[in-house]
Amino acid sequence: MSSIVDIHTHIYPPSYLALLRSRSEVPRLLDLPNKGSKPRLIILPSDEDPSLPLEQRGRPIDASYSSLDEKLKFMDTHSITISIISLANPWLDFLDPHEGSQWALKINNELSSLCTSRAAKNRLYAFASLPLSASPDAIVQEITRISRLPRIVGVVLGTTGLGDGLDDPNLTAVWAALEKSSMMIFLHPHYGLPASVFGPRSSEYGHVLPLALGFPMETTIAFTRMYSSGVFDRHSTLKILIAHAGGAVPFLSGRIRSCVDHERHFQGAGRGPKRGLSDVLRTNVWLDAVVYSATGVKAAAEVVGVERVFFGTDHPFFPPLDGVQEDGQKWASVEMNVEAIREAFAGDAEAFESVLGANACSVLGLEKG
Amino acid sequence: MSSIVDIHTHIYPPSYLALLRSRSEVPRLLDLPNKGSKPRLIILPSDEDPSLPLEQRGRPIDASYSSLDEKLKFMDTHSITISIISLANPWLDFLDPHEGSQWALKINNELSSLCTSRAAKNRLYAFASLPLSASPDAIVQEITRISRLPRIVGVVLGTTGLGDGLDDPNLTAVWAALEKSSMMIFLHPHYGLPASVFGPRSSEYGHVLPLALGFPMETTIAFTRMYSSGVFDRHSTLKILIAHAGGAVPFLSGRIRSCVDHERHFQGAGRGPKRGLSDVLRTNVWLDAVVYSATGVKAAAEVVGVERVFFGTDHPFFPPLDGVQEDGQKWASVEMNVEAIREAFAGDAEAFESVLGANACSVLGLEKG
Repeated sequence: MSSIVDIHTHIYPPSYLALLRSRSEVPRLLDLPNKGSKPRLIILPSDEDPSLPLEQRGRPIDASYSSLDEKLKFMDTHSITISIISLANPWLDFLDPHEGSQWALKINNELSSLCTSRAAKNRLYAFASLPLSASPDAIVQEITRISRLPRIVGVVLGTTGLGDGLDDPNLTAVWAALEKSSMMIFLHPHYGLPASVFGPRSSEYGHVLPLALGFPMETTIAFTRMYSSGVFDRHSTLKILIAHAGGAVPFLSGRIRSCVDHERHFQGAGRGPKRGLSDVLRTNVWLDAVVYSATGVKAAAEVVGVERVFFGTDHPFFPPLDGVQEDGQKWASVEMNVEAIREAFAGDAEAFESVLGANACSVLGLEKG
Repeated sequence: MSSIVDIHTHIYPPSYLALLRSRSEVPRLLDLPNKGSKPRLIILPSDEDPSLPLEQRGRPIDASYSSLDEKLKFMDTHSITISIISLANPWLDFLDPHEGSQWALKINNELSSLCTSRAAKNRLYAFASLPLSASPDAIVQEITRISRLPRIVGVVLGTTGLGDGLDDPNLTAVWAALEKSSMMIFLHPHYGLPASVFGPRSSEYGHVLPLALGFPMETTIAFTRMYSSGVFDRHSTLKILIAHAGGAVPFLSGRIRSCVDHERHFQGAGRGPKRGLSDVLRTNVWLDAVVYSATGVKAAAEVVGVERVFFGTDHPFFPPLDGVQEDGQKWASVEMNVEAIREAFAGDAEAFESVLGANACSVLGLEKG
């Protein structure tokens, strides 16, 4: 077996957790009065449900969210050779412009240092974070700076851009700087959909609707807005890795194409995207395989090509629920994704290994140990 | 080649168009002052864009939306043997309770008569409409009544139920009556997602975002709410056909399952759905193949079984855009779906024919000509 690379794995460095701890509104980290209770991470608007007691809001967090040791232990447990770590949502989106720039500098330096540290044993790379609340100039400056930092292979990006979505023309300089740097964008959801769409009984289903549906739908909308506005016409070398196997892009790609083809508003000259969706998917897009089913993995590989799909875990999210974790206990969420890839490419060992690690090594130029 | 059955094809009977014509707010039918212009059908909230001149709102409609002759011509053009017609959205959702019941009676009788008419040549069946604004008792009464009408094989249903979604416990009697009748529910979107999620430039993309994404996402959320609330635990023989190949359910089914498995809120006794999603998909769910890609058709067939997927056209929506239609000209939107099915089952003629028509004949007990 060749390398296993985890493209989708998050970390909240201790400095970032201290920032969240200092806040009194979402996103925040809440220490409970009871010393024995784990702090609660409250990052989604739906996490701050006033009908719930404090100790049930958001999710409990432990060392796996911030500790390098825990990340390496998790990697060992699942035979992961290399992880591309990224700051978890909501990144730096909520900071004011000046704070955003300062924190980007700080967090990106920390991530790079973590990856080059002796303790990381050459097993880590990182997606950096951008100060999206700052000016496009400040963002471009940070892109240029991080493109020279060791072991930074791209940037993780939420869906709001400068506040107005990723089809915002004011992002032009940012896309151009990312193209120039050749760094990959890791497009990741955070904001989900308005609570109203999940209905009045949504809280009875815990996080199921916002996480299972809101997240992938948010990502799908964000990418389709980019595509429809012609971002990939104007920035034809942009590289974008879409989280959770593209949200629902692979399954809906035919419908998107058909709706674009049948759109009266696009009949006029110069309107609508110029490049076909299939072309963009096979040229500009990569997908992780965090989709928990062979059906999902196959659909992902069909629309972008098997060489453009990467294994991921979404660690430290979706840990086993059965209380105390024993050392060496594998996570069901990870196993489900490994099995989905195995089943999707049953009998094709080369495809299995390429998705599990070889693709990432080759596309991102990773060096082992 | 055996029969081709179109499971997803709509009609607005002339009486319903007259109703829409009498209204001054969405949904409505707008005659333009210029005699040469086609009337505009304004059914989606996003259709009534005040920034657009009247002649650009919604979509132009012609006889294909209401005429039996045009439906049969369309069927002949595409070699469709049998069509299961349904009232197009937004059905009777917007009527007050008393009106709703009256119109259900009227429209369902009209549809049944249309199907049994000499002109229809035994080539039509129908999904009836329910007066959802009325009381559950009145709805149940109409279900009982239509289950005895000739050529009614099920009911078309939007996602709002009694106004509060399809996970509303007040729907219990409705589900029970549908189970008892053995009629199939055709779950169809209309309301999409709130405009805010598509961002400030959405209107530059015409209907693309609401139709390509809003529609399937609405359906996916509606079904997942039904599943999460235990509707299929309590009504284990409910039969539901989900429009547009399930929205995004096939692709997201793994993620939904994983989120349910990892939901802390469901750990308590008696919480969360009891039946596995795969079981429900293979027992209670059917999908149409209106998904415009082989990838979509394959994913649909994988999660429910190839014998549970039905060809559909979505006629009269997505007509060719190139102006005057010649008699006998095939529609690209239809061809795309036929080709998608052919490609999905390349070399497996039996699977191709089963999806194209044999499945519907067998599941719905259709009789040919």
